[in-house]
Amino acid sequence: MQLKFDKTTGLLPAIIQEAGTGKVLMLGFMNAESFEKTLTTGCVTFFSRSRNKLWVKGESSGHVLKVSDIRVDCDADAVLVVAEQLGPGTCHEGYHSCFFRRVEDGKLVIAEPRAFDPDAVYGSAGSAAPAGKAKE
Amino acid sequence: MQLKFDKTTGLLPAIIQEAGTGKVLMLGFMNAESFEKTLTTGCVTFFSRSRNKLWVKGESSGHVLKVSDIRVDCDADAVLVVAEQLGPGTCHEGYHSCFFRRVEDGKLVIAEPRAFDPDAVYGSAGSAAPAGKAKE
Repeated sequence: MQLKFDKTTGLLPAIIQEAGTGKVLMLGFMNAESFEKTLTTGCVTFFSRSRNKLWVKGESSGHVLKVSDIRVDCDADAVLVVAEQLGPGTCHEGYHSCFFRRVEDGKLVIAEPRAFDPDAVYGSAGSAAPAGKAKE
Repeated sequence: MQLKFDKTTGLLPAIIQEAGTGKVLMLGFMNAESFEKTLTTGCVTFFSRSRNKLWVKGESSGHVLKVSDIRVDCDADAVLVVAEQLGPGTCHEGYHSCFFRRVEDGKLVIAEPRAFDPDAVYGSAGSAAPAGKAKE
């Protein structure tokens, strides 16, 4: 199996879709090592671009994503991981999905209620930390 | 509304999910111009990295993707477009979804039947053309 990781970054985008509901939970990036680890452990593992290291989703929150299916697209440069979410939500801001905002009349509007208190899960750094940091 | 396009490439990943079924159809990339065009025309428009120009999905096949909802993730660096697919399939290889292959025992296995004949839709260049070219 040959996946086409980006020649410059060594990464490819990985879509996470919730098993059962079909909801798209988040998009992260994987390098070859994190993809292999996702396969062997059954837990979704990304490569964190901000921290420059492997990132097991849920390692701090406990909201692990357990793999149930992995799909590869026609160009083999993107993957779709269907996973069971262990916990109330994927997003470090406390929502079920990271895609909790809708575009309406050129503005971003929150489209679903918070599923959990991010401060209680991630500590005070949760919702206040720079985007892309706390959730990792 | 501030989307965070990649500072180097000017792009962000756009997931396309089918309205109604919830099926993830494909992943493409958008720049600011193609995102705006998607908003204003209601037809999913990518930026083709291989052709270095805007690409209205379905411009050659007629399998246009009509936007029904646009979501933005917590970091504002990825979008999820829920769309109605006009036509039997999104993939230039003749499948309903570009994610038609499953990882099984380290190999890629086709997981769904072909939805249409790509040669009839895209001409003989369809399934034979280099990946990432014909579908555009």
